[in-house]
Amino acid sequence: MMIEIERKFLVTSEAFKKEAFSEKRIKQGYLSSVPERTVRVRTKGDRGFLTIKGASNESGLSRFEWEKEITVEEAENLLLLCEKGTIDKTRFEVKVHGHVYEIDVFYGENKGLIMAEIELLSETQAFEKPSWLGQEVTGDKRYYNSYLSCNPYIHW
Amino acid sequence: MMIEIERKFLVTSEAFKKEAFSEKRIKQGYLSSVPERTVRVRTKGDRGFLTIKGASNESGLSRFEWEKEITVEEAENLLLLCEKGTIDKTRFEVKVHGHVYEIDVFYGENKGLIMAEIELLSETQAFEKPSWLGQEVTGDKRYYNSYLSCNPYIHW
Repeated sequence: MMIEIERKFLVTSEAFKKEAFSEKRIKQGYLSSVPERTVRVRTKGDRGFLTIKGASNESGLSRFEWEKEITVEEAENLLLLCEKGTIDKTRFEVKVHGHVYEIDVFYGENKGLIMAEIELLSETQAFEKPSWLGQEVTGDKRYYNSYLSCNPYIHW
Repeated sequence: MMIEIERKFLVTSEAFKKEAFSEKRIKQGYLSSVPERTVRVRTKGDRGFLTIKGASNESGLSRFEWEKEITVEEAENLLLLCEKGTIDKTRFEVKVHGHVYEIDVFYGENKGLIMAEIELLSETQAFEKPSWLGQEVTGDKRYYNSYLSCNPYIHW
């Protein structure tokens, strides 16, 4: 088993865009945001997904998760039913010094927010920071998508 | 467009069982029972279904509905996440004088309840009542599955 270590940062400029090797629009909403049974609808580029998650177990490490690919048209119709607070963003992927960054540029009520995530092998693994990487926000719950959904960035 | 007219009745004996041409166990639960976005999980015999419905429109005649067949194992796993009040019943189909009755025999907290539904072409279409057909309960909200889920029959 591999434990994923992810660190999350704010991004201070859009200079990363010219280095991106992938770019996909993501829209997501929740049919249920109750933590014991979340039901998430997502479009990612021209694909659609329905994801159902249960509560975390006591240690917080595992959580039942079921995902089904659906058509983008189905996902778009289901997004119309979702709770208020749909997330709309573009995800860029950028490779810097051998590491892939996933960078989310938010729109709508979260406009102005740009976040990057990098996956590392350990909490202490060193990596060279690109010039556009800003303050670290790893573990800060305000930057979770589920929090942004109810408390959009423009109201902070 | 065809408008379905369904009439619902209590059933007073199990005599219909010997005439049944189909018999399927149904278990169903809700990941969301909010009327604007219900998410229902169902196993029916050896098949599984996930059904998402939106709010009714103003006239009450139409409602967005999306259904996906999933494996029975997936459905059983998702049933474990559902809100309290899973419905467990056997659905029998019986043909009487050219009409098909769907008859639900409930178990668990709704034990003792047996209901039959018949689909007709108009509200006034005549049909011959079999001996086991009891009181009509068409339109009585207490007999909706969603109501039974929260207010099981044994507590009435």
